[in-house]
Amino acid sequence: MLFLDQPHHDGSALYVSTLAPEPGEPVTLWLRAPRAAGVTAVHVRTVHDGEPRYARAVPDTARSGRAIGGYGATDDWWRAEVTPVNPVTPYRFLLETTGGQAWLNAAGLFPHDLPDSADFRLVCHEPPPAWMADSIVYQIFPDRFARSGPMPDLPDWALPRDWDRDPVIPSGPGTAEQFYGGDLDGVVRHLDHIESLGADTVYLTPIFPARSNHRYDAATFDHIDPLLGGDAALRRLAAALHGRGMRLLGDITANHTGDTHAWFTAAVTDVHAPERAMYYFDPETGDYESWWGVKSLPKLNWGSELVRDRMREVLTRWIGPFDGWRVDVANMTGRSGADDFNHEVAALLRRALPPGAAFVAEHNHDATADLDRDGWHGTMNYAGFTRPVWSWLRGDDLDLDHFLGVPGTVPRRDGHAVLATLRAFAAHMSWRSLVHSWQLLDSHDTPRIRTVTGSRERHLVALGLQATLPGTPMVFAGSEFGLTGVNGEHSRTPMPWNRPADQDLATLAAYRGLLGLRRREPALRHGGLRWLHADADCLVFARETYEETLIVVARRAPGSTPALPAGAEPVGHGEVMNASTSDGPSLSVWRLAGS
Amino acid sequence: MLFLDQPHHDGSALYVSTLAPEPGEPVTLWLRAPRAAGVTAVHVRTVHDGEPRYARAVPDTARSGRAIGGYGATDDWWRAEVTPVNPVTPYRFLLETTGGQAWLNAAGLFPHDLPDSADFRLVCHEPPPAWMADSIVYQIFPDRFARSGPMPDLPDWALPRDWDRDPVIPSGPGTAEQFYGGDLDGVVRHLDHIESLGADTVYLTPIFPARSNHRYDAATFDHIDPLLGGDAALRRLAAALHGRGMRLLGDITANHTGDTHAWFTAAVTDVHAPERAMYYFDPETGDYESWWGVKSLPKLNWGSELVRDRMREVLTRWIGPFDGWRVDVANMTGRSGADDFNHEVAALLRRALPPGAAFVAEHNHDATADLDRDGWHGTMNYAGFTRPVWSWLRGDDLDLDHFLGVPGTVPRRDGHAVLATLRAFAAHMSWRSLVHSWQLLDSHDTPRIRTVTGSRERHLVALGLQATLPGTPMVFAGSEFGLTGVNGEHSRTPMPWNRPADQDLATLAAYRGLLGLRRREPALRHGGLRWLHADADCLVFARETYEETLIVVARRAPGSTPALPAGAEPVGHGEVMNASTSDGPSLSVWRLAGS
Repeated sequence: MLFLDQPHHDGSALYVSTLAPEPGEPVTLWLRAPRAAGVTAVHVRTVHDGEPRYARAVPDTARSGRAIGGYGATDDWWRAEVTPVNPVTPYRFLLETTGGQAWLNAAGLFPHDLPDSADFRLVCHEPPPAWMADSIVYQIFPDRFARSGPMPDLPDWALPRDWDRDPVIPSGPGTAEQFYGGDLDGVVRHLDHIESLGADTVYLTPIFPARSNHRYDAATFDHIDPLLGGDAALRRLAAALHGRGMRLLGDITANHTGDTHAWFTAAVTDVHAPERAMYYFDPETGDYESWWGVKSLPKLNWGSELVRDRMREVLTRWIGPFDGWRVDVANMTGRSGADDFNHEVAALLRRALPPGAAFVAEHNHDATADLDRDGWHGTMNYAGFTRPVWSWLRGDDLDLDHFLGVPGTVPRRDGHAVLATLRAFAAHMSWRSLVHSWQLLDSHDTPRIRTVTGSRERHLVALGLQATLPGTPMVFAGSEFGLTGVNGEHSRTPMPWNRPADQDLATLAAYRGLLGLRRREPALRHGGLRWLHADADCLVFARETYEETLIVVARRAPGSTPALPAGAEPVGHGEVMNASTSDGPSLSVWRLAGS
Repeated sequence: MLFLDQPHHDGSALYVSTLAPEPGEPVTLWLRAPRAAGVTAVHVRTVHDGEPRYARAVPDTARSGRAIGGYGATDDWWRAEVTPVNPVTPYRFLLETTGGQAWLNAAGLFPHDLPDSADFRLVCHEPPPAWMADSIVYQIFPDRFARSGPMPDLPDWALPRDWDRDPVIPSGPGTAEQFYGGDLDGVVRHLDHIESLGADTVYLTPIFPARSNHRYDAATFDHIDPLLGGDAALRRLAAALHGRGMRLLGDITANHTGDTHAWFTAAVTDVHAPERAMYYFDPETGDYESWWGVKSLPKLNWGSELVRDRMREVLTRWIGPFDGWRVDVANMTGRSGADDFNHEVAALLRRALPPGAAFVAEHNHDATADLDRDGWHGTMNYAGFTRPVWSWLRGDDLDLDHFLGVPGTVPRRDGHAVLATLRAFAAHMSWRSLVHSWQLLDSHDTPRIRTVTGSRERHLVALGLQATLPGTPMVFAGSEFGLTGVNGEHSRTPMPWNRPADQDLATLAAYRGLLGLRRREPALRHGGLRWLHADADCLVFARETYEETLIVVARRAPGSTPALPAGAEPVGHGEVMNASTSDGPSLSVWRLAGS
């Protein structure tokens, strides 16, 4: 059976009258209560200036007894008006039921008291730009995406490699120096491909000059690496994207610079230079802090006004070609020992950007305490999406070391455990932060999803979850061809434009189908999320708007699937994968559109 | 069976080498793993400048295979060294077991990933004064505790009442004006009684002059209310307590003053007065913010330097007679709309106090986000202790409205639900904050525990939990006699010194016995906490030190109790209540002291 007998609320537009409330503006909240739940009264608890307050909900006669979202014609709806006064207002529901009192928060229904950490949240901070919630992001590691011409003259550190013949060095000497020569005009040539996937936003890993192929060790923020085509190439790429109504995001190292950056060379050569205060130098030894002790990546000291002024200037200067930033190592930025400027930094940079700019934090574990502020719009949701999906869909023979930094290989977990993780992380952030976080299956920092899953079928189930759950899909270029890779470096395979044997066209078609489905279906971008079923091998959930509900059934192995509600119709054709056969991993999408 | 087969860690001295680490100082953490848990490897995950790090634990051969704490001679112990670098370091254990990977955090053992919010925590902030963890607090509402002489001349607002004949007005007109005339010299006369309970710390609700019997509407912070005996009486009381090695805590309204306070009268009469900035005046209407809209309690604006300077001066001035403060409405203090100065206020006031002073926050819901900082040492743990205990031990016929502010009466919950709440709140704060928070069964703001439980037996089971769980017991004067009360006002009964019929001497003996047990047994004050069993009617837990373990068995109704480990011996006599008969609520304490 599906869990359609549980009371439900989430932060989506079906249940909350505005996703961008102003302080002092009344907000209507709805709760849906199927008859079977036996709900007899509903109160909303909000926290107001640090103190809980209760508002009594009333039956909503306009919604009750109608098939809202295409189902539940006998459901009761309750409505309450609350007024947020603080930047973030935690709220939850107190239900009086025939079975006793219960709390409903973002983590679920509880028959006991619990802390506020998983409360729903109304967020009055300036909302992210509206385009973000509709976007699909395509990540490009420029050295490996496409080269527009012959290999350029290389600097002393670079180790030239042949695009289609030299395999990527996955670790050890040469890893950061191997150079394939991808450039920005190369990206321009493949915009049709990117657009064909349904992606509308290109995110480039760093493009400032540096002494590595990854360029996270910026030597300057003043111009674009001439090896990539320089400033003019960035303008050409941005113009081409903007001409298609697409967007472009940059990647900024806010935690550190390279050790060849002029700020650092000034700081290291003259203890009296103003730049000295921009880094963490030990006054005794002259040694300096760096990212994980890598001395080529000296850590910025955000206690310094000079860092604040200069970085603010850098981030704003490149908006125009860029429509926003992904912030590298955002979790460590501004944090060192007793210093914790992280929230200040996020807020001051966000405030400096124009309203239409995106601002997304890299965070490889639990970002929730850094979200729902006036800084990052969202995070790269490794912890709340990538890891649980991996652990549900990993291949049988997988033996990867250090699962996103955690000792050991990717554990094998069942659907209950995966759902527990998905819910736990989602419950610790607002709906808004969830929707604006990036749901990724892999990136330039991880093994490829194809390697993790070990099969096209499980890979595409993972893709199906990415395409249909709340959150912004981020696709790492090449995964749409089924490329493989055992770690972040190894995954940075040059794109197989000229290697047909490396192009899995069935996978490519599934990306176009499933991401295309997301683009077409408002419920997949803006609908609520209601978990309906979990067992070891099967997860079922609904995405619902006022008008209709889509039900997604994901299986990692054969078995019986819970009966869907009467009237459920399959959505589309190509995007429903293996659904009828049930002889292996499958994903299907169904529509409930009422009578 | 008891859960002695689960791996265990908590923040107590048995498992952590120091409870007050300095940043950069290595800390040893231990994990106890019974053989049955099948633990094959252990890693400790800490967060360091925002990034997770892993340390591999090694078997501790000095502890493994010995009956540490008097039991578990075949247990394995694992040891890891970690170095906290930030003020607060979240940590948890990654266990590789024969059944797969699992995480152990302060909420328990989980077979799936989860956010950091319930991680254990190493806290490098300045620790609370050492005396606090050993203390037992006795709360006095001065107007109702004892009068040293005839009724004084009363001010215009006061409504004189006869100590033993006039019942307390529980609500409506006269509630705040009824005046029984208790004073500070009255407290001095009853110190033998207080000490006989095992209490060593007296906490007085406000004693500054005001226009109410509760005095939360202070007219000044410059002197003690002459109706209570004035400054000299406070000095006498403090000297009498200090002479016994006991301590005295005050109660400060940091959120507001009374509307007759000179700061407010200056502010309200002259828009140009510097004091105008100390409150929240609407520049248009001239209206001002106040606590819950009660206009006699104008809210302080902590954005004002004048508030900061003057309040800092007030809090420090009275240290001497007082050994610290309970802070009224700490949860709302400094919070108003977009302003949130709460953590700043807590830190600046804490910093101003001498190292030996206690600083405890009133908080009636979830204080966890405000603890583990450099401010409040702990909270009044209504949410994490009072509410779950009430809901487990409430009487059958109870019909109280607004259970600590929550709509509806006190729900009836089983042992599983109560344990879930106890663990959830404890898991969201450090061990240190838990130990320094006040575990209370009732206060001047609640119904009396006797009324909530409806019977002496269940009342004493509640007392047993208060006396044996981690956290500082706080006893509201009068509950040791079994006084009753249906709400906070009604519970402020004048003490029954001269009403033998109102003194339940069996209850008094149990307070002396159980709180005395806490004073005698280091494991009850400093031992770890290990939950061993929960069913609807029974909770069993252990408090363990290196030397010995005490096991507490609490029952709210008859039934079979899990078998205790071999060698468990009952502790004491009078403090073991109804344990042998098992014909009703019971509480018993057992000792494991090894072979």
